Amino acid sequence: MTSSFDFAPLFPAGLPAPSARWTGLAKYSFVGGNNDSEQLPLEGLIEATTSALQREGRSLATYGLAHGPQGYLPLREFLVTKLKRDAGINCTVDDLLIVSGSLQALDLVNATLLTRGDTVIFEQDSYQGSLTRLARLGVNVAGVPLDKDGMRMDVLAATLADLKSRGIRPKYIYTIPTVQNPTGSIMPESRRTELVRLATEYGVPVFEDDCYADLVWSGQRPPAIHAMSESGGVIHIGSFSKSIAPALRVGFIVAPWEVMSRMLALKTDAGSGALEQMVLAAYCKPHFASHVPALTRALRTKLDTLMEALNEQFGTAAEFEEPKGGIFLWVKLPEQVDTLKLYQAALAAGVSINPGPEWSTDKSHSRSRLRLCFASPTHQQIREGVAVLAEVCRKEFGVPARSANVEKRA
Amino acid sequence: MTSSFDFAPLFPAGLPAPSARWTGLAKYSFVGGNNDSEQLPLEGLIEATTSALQREGRSLATYGLAHGPQGYLPLREFLVTKLKRDAGINCTVDDLLIVSGSLQALDLVNATLLTRGDTVIFEQDSYQGSLTRLARLGVNVAGVPLDKDGMRMDVLAATLADLKSRGIRPKYIYTIPTVQNPTGSIMPESRRTELVRLATEYGVPVFEDDCYADLVWSGQRPPAIHAMSESGGVIHIGSFSKSIAPALRVGFIVAPWEVMSRMLALKTDAGSGALEQMVLAAYCKPHFASHVPALTRALRTKLDTLMEALNEQFGTAAEFEEPKGGIFLWVKLPEQVDTLKLYQAALAAGVSINPGPEWSTDKSHSRSRLRLCFASPTHQQIREGVAVLAEVCRKEFGVPARSANVEKRA
Repeated sequence: MTSSFDFAPLFPAGLPAPSARWTGLAKYSFVGGNNDSEQLPLEGLIEATTSALQREGRSLATYGLAHGPQGYLPLREFLVTKLKRDAGINCTVDDLLIVSGSLQALDLVNATLLTRGDTVIFEQDSYQGSLTRLARLGVNVAGVPLDKDGMRMDVLAATLADLKSRGIRPKYIYTIPTVQNPTGSIMPESRRTELVRLATEYGVPVFEDDCYADLVWSGQRPPAIHAMSESGGVIHIGSFSKSIAPALRVGFIVAPWEVMSRMLALKTDAGSGALEQMVLAAYCKPHFASHVPALTRALRTKLDTLMEALNEQFGTAAEFEEPKGGIFLWVKLPEQVDTLKLYQAALAAGVSINPGPEWSTDKSHSRSRLRLCFASPTHQQIREGVAVLAEVCRKEFGVPARSANVEKRA
Repeated sequence: MTSSFDFAPLFPAGLPAPSARWTGLAKYSFVGGNNDSEQLPLEGLIEATTSALQREGRSLATYGLAHGPQGYLPLREFLVTKLKRDAGINCTVDDLLIVSGSLQALDLVNATLLTRGDTVIFEQDSYQGSLTRLARLGVNVAGVPLDKDGMRMDVLAATLADLKSRGIRPKYIYTIPTVQNPTGSIMPESRRTELVRLATEYGVPVFEDDCYADLVWSGQRPPAIHAMSESGGVIHIGSFSKSIAPALRVGFIVAPWEVMSRMLALKTDAGSGALEQMVLAAYCKPHFASHVPALTRALRTKLDTLMEALNEQFGTAAEFEEPKGGIFLWVKLPEQVDTLKLYQAALAAGVSINPGPEWSTDKSHSRSRLRLCFASPTHQQIREGVAVLAEVCRKEFGVPARSANVEKRA
């Protein structure tokens, strides 16, 4: 479609740069939160869809299935049970809002609490989508470093004290405590207790993003921070993207009515997709508890393949902590590797990666790091893709000095 | 869930008022864009869902089904064919963006073009959701009155000239030309030509909202304004909410790449619901062209029931133009009726209506007007609801002086 009309003079200042045209996924795609298509519970979803539609499909003629702006009631009922069982959260259907993926949850929480010039506290390495939203909103982000148990409480305490001394009350402490993105750590219960104590002391809400929390290798997770707070100063969000299917776009928020009523006033989309809510409710009630362990077992084997491939191809040049669950591995390469440059060169060779600086508040700390999602590629694609990545990295940065492939060929 | 944590000091200035708790639909509900549940093509949707999931359900494990940020390709392909056939629009799949209902289309177009203090031109009586969005954005709205053929071109010309003389270039002219909301008029082709001419002369884009355009009694509609513009200065949006099911939340935008690339950068939701896009594509390709005439025939009989009931219950106190399609009737009551007050009293009696001032840029013009949606209630609910409404109106405002019910009882 050609257009001679010039829209450019009409664009307001501050728009993000235009998107490039989409050119498809890379041959070896280690980016984003795509999941293992072999583990998608297809037969169960088909059965759930058919039964839900036969039973109450005609209600699709009414916005929100006439269940109100907080979402389809049976899905909220499932979540009440699931959140109690898995995360220790005591809530009712009135405390739950179904949203169009946890990205809409981020937008609604941010719109309810933030304005330009505000400050929030983040884990130093964190989810790109959360970081880019704050940059667009003009909000300052104070990063707190992580160790193998998640956000460091000594630095959080110092950060809160420092901000207070400068008259700044942060709007929230954002944490992904259960399978942290990108590090894959799980914050132990004792540290959660300390986090709640500090947040209460300083009067700062905790924004708990639990969207990967179903995917824990051991099947055991600590109680949610939401469940441990006596004051109720916690907003908890989650998603079905990682446990069932990302393309469905269904997430949720647990929040007190004071916040919920404000978010509802900002959610002007006439409800999130109702068919997807119906399907999830019908599928999850009987099947969620058995589906998730099967999924995590499959993901765990892919993680093993990825770690093996990295060890084989990169040797000691690739360092990582073994994640406790999830779909990604956070990898440290030698200092000379700039992963933003590696990203470009790898893409040209058919391998897509998430470069570290996009997933961190500290660009120098994350300069040589990258995130690899292992859920979507097959075992063979993982092995081949890592080999290509090592070859590109060697050509561009001289490391790994000799990759496994080269040695084998020699 | 009780919370002792006080979030109120954290809320930024300018948040909308908190929502009230949802209390369910009224017994006689004439509000919103809910549709006729009997006409929902349930068997066809079940069949489409099953076949689509069996064929390519595993792609739900990948965001956007790996079809990129503009949406599921087969649905865009259907729309290319449909828009050409029904509306005369020549576009390709690259000109189309699938969105989460046309409400997201409004948000994306507004975010791409508007900033606080801007001016846009609207039909004087228009869609509430569009008007409230502009109020929140701090954008000035110049209303142009309608007659039975839609927006008046003489007033539009004068408005454009007046704004230009004051150095104001409006960001767009928003119109619902094909089954206008709330008046139900269809703008004839000659007037569309004049609108395109004026928009081109003043360098103002047309924002064409065609979300009701499938529901025309005659089955014949004029070409879209998008199809008539040679400059390409038209953004066209539409929806499946009125033709298939509102709860699915699937709409679309047709726009040149200059605008599309900006909207894509603002659409940070990781794609709209993919299952709903798959279902619509599978259903619509074989069935859309036969489903819509059956739906409009059923809607037309409900309109007849509504007009009969109004004539019977309100007599000459209720004035209206017969709409040329759609799902609502725009009714004028006598001057003494304040429909904002009528709304409250009627709701207490179990009847919900849309009061005129919420659907208009001119509160005095619309003070005694109301919008009634006739698609969702049954024929019997329409008759009973209108009788209750007339009784409430008579008690509150003295009109209709004697309702049909009273005469019958006498």
